[in-house]
Amino acid sequence: MAHARGYCAGVAVISPDLLAALRAAVGPTAVLVDPDVTVSYQRDMMPLAEAGVPGAVVLPADTAQVQAVVRACAGAGVPIVPRGAGSGLSGAANAVDGCVVLVTTRLDRILEIDPDNRLAVVQPGVVNLDLRDAVAKHGLFYPPDPSSYDWCTIGGNLSTNAGGLCCVKYGVTTDAVLGLEVVLADGEVLRTGRRTVKGVAGYDLARLFVGSEGTLGVITEATLALRPLPQAPGTLVAAFGATDAAGAAVSRVVREGVVPSLMEIMDATSIAVVETYLRTELGAGRGCAALLICQSDAGGEAARAELAVIEQVCRDAGAELTHVTFDPAESAMFLTARRAVLTALEIYGAWLTDDVCVPRTRIAELIAGCERIGAEVGLRIAVVGHAGDGNMHPTIVYDPGSADEFARARTAFDEILALGMELGGTITGEHGVGRIKRDWLAREIGPIALRVHREIKAALDPGNLFNPGSMFSSSGR
Amino acid sequence: MAHARGYCAGVAVISPDLLAALRAAVGPTAVLVDPDVTVSYQRDMMPLAEAGVPGAVVLPADTAQVQAVVRACAGAGVPIVPRGAGSGLSGAANAVDGCVVLVTTRLDRILEIDPDNRLAVVQPGVVNLDLRDAVAKHGLFYPPDPSSYDWCTIGGNLSTNAGGLCCVKYGVTTDAVLGLEVVLADGEVLRTGRRTVKGVAGYDLARLFVGSEGTLGVITEATLALRPLPQAPGTLVAAFGATDAAGAAVSRVVREGVVPSLMEIMDATSIAVVETYLRTELGAGRGCAALLICQSDAGGEAARAELAVIEQVCRDAGAELTHVTFDPAESAMFLTARRAVLTALEIYGAWLTDDVCVPRTRIAELIAGCERIGAEVGLRIAVVGHAGDGNMHPTIVYDPGSADEFARARTAFDEILALGMELGGTITGEHGVGRIKRDWLAREIGPIALRVHREIKAALDPGNLFNPGSMFSSSGR
Repeated sequence: MAHARGYCAGVAVISPDLLAALRAAVGPTAVLVDPDVTVSYQRDMMPLAEAGVPGAVVLPADTAQVQAVVRACAGAGVPIVPRGAGSGLSGAANAVDGCVVLVTTRLDRILEIDPDNRLAVVQPGVVNLDLRDAVAKHGLFYPPDPSSYDWCTIGGNLSTNAGGLCCVKYGVTTDAVLGLEVVLADGEVLRTGRRTVKGVAGYDLARLFVGSEGTLGVITEATLALRPLPQAPGTLVAAFGATDAAGAAVSRVVREGVVPSLMEIMDATSIAVVETYLRTELGAGRGCAALLICQSDAGGEAARAELAVIEQVCRDAGAELTHVTFDPAESAMFLTARRAVLTALEIYGAWLTDDVCVPRTRIAELIAGCERIGAEVGLRIAVVGHAGDGNMHPTIVYDPGSADEFARARTAFDEILALGMELGGTITGEHGVGRIKRDWLAREIGPIALRVHREIKAALDPGNLFNPGSMFSSSGR
Repeated sequence: MAHARGYCAGVAVISPDLLAALRAAVGPTAVLVDPDVTVSYQRDMMPLAEAGVPGAVVLPADTAQVQAVVRACAGAGVPIVPRGAGSGLSGAANAVDGCVVLVTTRLDRILEIDPDNRLAVVQPGVVNLDLRDAVAKHGLFYPPDPSSYDWCTIGGNLSTNAGGLCCVKYGVTTDAVLGLEVVLADGEVLRTGRRTVKGVAGYDLARLFVGSEGTLGVITEATLALRPLPQAPGTLVAAFGATDAAGAAVSRVVREGVVPSLMEIMDATSIAVVETYLRTELGAGRGCAALLICQSDAGGEAARAELAVIEQVCRDAGAELTHVTFDPAESAMFLTARRAVLTALEIYGAWLTDDVCVPRTRIAELIAGCERIGAEVGLRIAVVGHAGDGNMHPTIVYDPGSADEFARARTAFDEILALGMELGGTITGEHGVGRIKRDWLAREIGPIALRVHREIKAALDPGNLFNPGSMFSSSGR
């Protein structure tokens, strides 16, 4: 569990007129104002980001209710912070003082699954896993699978352009988006995109809203492209005595032209905590510095051939141990181990996970750098990540009761971002900017791109109604 | 050859001051003003669209020269029409009277190919085929392959978000874009996107510029994601006595969860003209109403298995003849036949190709509708298209010397768009809006989305410098 931390201001109140308008918009039971209740909607899972006190939390049940909330808030000049399940890791769903938190979890219907055109139409409050399960019944697959897939919502996934473990082969959320319905700052409903596979009628507005972290509008419906359900995967595990050998193996797999359906890396710290937590042996052996977990979902001989190439590459790169399995239970066990890292780290304290994405050739350097940074700040840093696409999650463990450790964790967090940029990477591969990486965004994209961001924000949300101060400051400060 | 047609105003002149500034910007030999020369840069390949007379044509050789041209034109209040090779089919590169046509063909360098990170950095004037050939030497693949791939440029592909035959499996141009460099309306250089596989730092500006048809800036560099070079394809050809049987086969292939690397359809008219033109038999036999050409590049047994599934589906749907080949020459022959349709139609007159994309379940209805429309207007309409993604190119043949036939061709063109929308499709799957479908864009996306387009255009190009009147009118008329 990430621990709430950071800046919390006092009690925020909302005007009686706006309160009445919100109650009229969504019904009295869907407007929450009790601070003991609204505190649950104050922040996401990122402990570093500041969070204000919401004036109210509203839970609309349809697009018309979202429109009414937006119009009421716009009229009153009160900002709206859109929110899904709150599983985010950047503070993008964190309240600002006196705002209205607009929660989309009640917009939770799968409106349509169309197997012949391989698409689904969903509301934003649908839980990722529920969509996956529903389409699987039709032999279909919705790829994006963030770690929180069993509780995060599609709306949050869209707003952050979420990734996951599947991205190396199947891309991120934006790659699955065909069309969107969005409530704009003046309460009008924008429908953009299409139901067809291809379409170039006008600007790609759908992909502008995807990843915009709730700063441009409230997504109320999405048309999503699906894929055929892949074959049950075969799994390869390779243990390396040195992280640079594991890094070299990743580059070499890319060069060999094999595209695994999953390619995860765990460093020594991650392996150790998971073995302790799950009370199991991952078979990495003593002195294992890094474990690569690769899958192929190509099926049958094709999967065996892909994994054989990867196995050979790993051996050539110096893997001390490789193991291939097509046993579903064993495959699942390795995935469970990979997914357990963050939870396992809670044995040692609170965690703070970073999200740099580097060129795949620089993974080993990133891991080595994180080791160095960990030593410098005197904190445990476990590196785990999506090696196949270079998106790494160095995770810093600290004592939440110690202000000093918290400060050192923050230092490490920033140093990892600097390192990621130095290696030609980005400050965020899939978690987003939110309130925690605002200054870093400016540093990464530079003044011209920042200006273009502000121009687009001002054009679509001139009153700065939506999620003000998230991603970047609109004021030009 | 499409014949130039439409609205051409008189001679346009450019002020001596601007001319001097342009010559200073790009050098005197790279500024063309002789009307006999500039006429070649007046329009693209779409005969219906209006085209004005350019005041000058400039051919900058680097980003700094593009900046200087943009600043000079912005200062003089003279619009810029960005242009690649001019292979477009929407009039998006057509001149407006007195404008400066900014041609990017001299920005033709492949700056980098990075096999370990599977990316290329290119200038916009690189010809699509040249990039394909260059990356193939590294075992890599740049998928987008519009029909004009042997002469169209990457800049034009980016501006129109071009597709091609590969899209059913590999997506369109935007799916290959990692980052862009763009010269903005004030001459500043925007760098957006990244070199990493994933990245969510800020708005997805790169994908906003992709497909914006030169209305928001001039793309001067692109970082493109590459894929491993696929295996040599196996090819299946299936002949159907009825188009609805072919349409049913397409839907059924989608439902079976097979993703061919290519899935093209040719109707009876297309087959007949190609057989005449190439003096070959496609083996479709008498009474063939539609031919499906499918490929699998999965390699070896996987390809055989995929094509076997598709073959069975085609037979079940009523195919009268199926043929599978792994002979590269025979595979290439079928592709040549498919790609020859437009050229072959020139035996009968000029052609006017449409570009609707419909849900894959509605392909047969679209073909039947085109047959009906052709009968109504008394013109030959050949339907050819990317069946795997529903993107169809009904192509109307008319006598360019007959104003009456031209008018009827235009009527048919519009009726096909109306039909595409009626079937739940879009007015353009890959060619774009340009000057020819501006009114149709408004009809498809509606007033709210159109307003958002105008807001974004006004935010990024407040002086309406870039390609004014293309895609939509900025004035709100």
